[in-house]
Amino acid sequence: MVVFRETFSLNSQGDCDILDITGRVAEVVGKSGISDGIGMAFVSHSTAAISCVEYEPGLVSDLKNLYEKLAPKGAGYGHDARWGDGNGHAHVRATLQGPSFAFPVAGGRPVLGTWQQIILMDYDNRPRSREVSITVVGE
Amino acid sequence: MVVFRETFSLNSQGDCDILDITGRVAEVVGKSGISDGIGMAFVSHSTAAISCVEYEPGLVSDLKNLYEKLAPKGAGYGHDARWGDGNGHAHVRATLQGPSFAFPVAGGRPVLGTWQQIILMDYDNRPRSREVSITVVGE
Amino acid sequence: MVVFRETFSLNSQGDCDILDITGRVAEVVGKSGISDGIGMAFVSHSTAAISCVEYEPGLVSDLKNLYEKLAPKGAGYGHDARWGDGNGHAHVRATLQGPSFAFPVAGGRPVLGTWQQIILMDYDNRPRSREVSITVVGE
Repeated sequence: MVVFRETFSLNSQGDCDILDITGRVAEVVGKSGISDGIGMAFVSHSTAAISCVEYEPGLVSDLKNLYEKLAPKGAGYGHDARWGDGNGHAHVRATLQGPSFAFPVAGGRPVLGTWQQIILMDYDNRPRSREVSITVVGE
Repeated sequence: MVVFRETFSLNSQGDCDILDITGRVAEVVGKSGISDGIGMAFVSHSTAAISCVEYEPGLVSDLKNLYEKLAPKGAGYGHDARWGDGNGHAHVRATLQGPSFAFPVAGGRPVLGTWQQIILMDYDNRPRSREVSITVVGE
Repeated sequence: MVVFRETFSLNSQGDCDILDITGRVAEVVGKSGISDGIGMAFVSHSTAAISCVEYEPGLVSDLKNLYEKLAPKGAGYGHDARWGDGNGHAHVRATLQGPSFAFPVAGGRPVLGTWQQIILMDYDNRPRSREVSITVVGE
């Protein structure tokens, strides 16, 4: 049993930008040399989250609408009143969705359904560079 | 330290069917021979999710109402406009809730509270057969 | 590779009390002697959840407003009708947010962003004592 971790950066446009990171996650899992175990993607920022979706333009747009409905921009957030960042909506969306995403690893690859792609969601109100770490434990 | 994985199938009725899978998860954990570690249930489909709840008819009904409120069926999804599947709501609910559920393992069993049952939620708009994998890492 | 687990208790005020548990989680990770791996915080109660947020009063208040919007107290829950507990909202919020939170461990510490604090959310309608277990697998 071993642990392997690698971190990569990527640029987002912010404003609920949704990026497919499946290929980069699979690349790290492949480099780990771990055939079988558990993998976890984690974004170390408080206005971004990781989950999965069938990555096609319709659903990317639907997800943006969902988050805007659940936690609209500029809806009188206490965070914005205190700090003037204008990204209160981004923080609460990130908490609700969560920064970590666990997945099975088998045959040296993430085990996902055909229509499951791993996505980074950047809710912040401006373009950002984001760090995503992939940790794999297994054998 | 070892890794153990087993996958089981189950049939759902779709339309936000909510199934208690605690017994089947516990069965796999028991078979693993792992006494202490981390377990993870993962559903490899983009219109289903896993979480936990006190599994009683009132809350099962309450959860169905919650998801219908957050992401109503037929509410003009881009996915439906593009692909005509009619299950755009199911996809965004699945992304929001997430396909993986991690839990502690101790004494060869999942460690859950008395009122915590592990559930599979199938948001799709028709009956489906679903694959759930249980991965356990530990000793 | 080893597994380490420790459980701690804490008191909450209920009613969507949101507590910063980062220090206690880090303390357990430090005691584990594990330098590198995966950690998981799990609350074994069906009306509480774990996630992370920038822990400042504005966002704590914003999160309370978010959950009240998504699943308002006393909004005709089937659970309340059946059991008279008055905490149906707490159960569905807990299912939506989830009881487990996975994070990377490196250098003997949880790896979090500067503005990411791990929080326990207690949605129940009265003060409660809560058990949180921290499991770490790694080397």
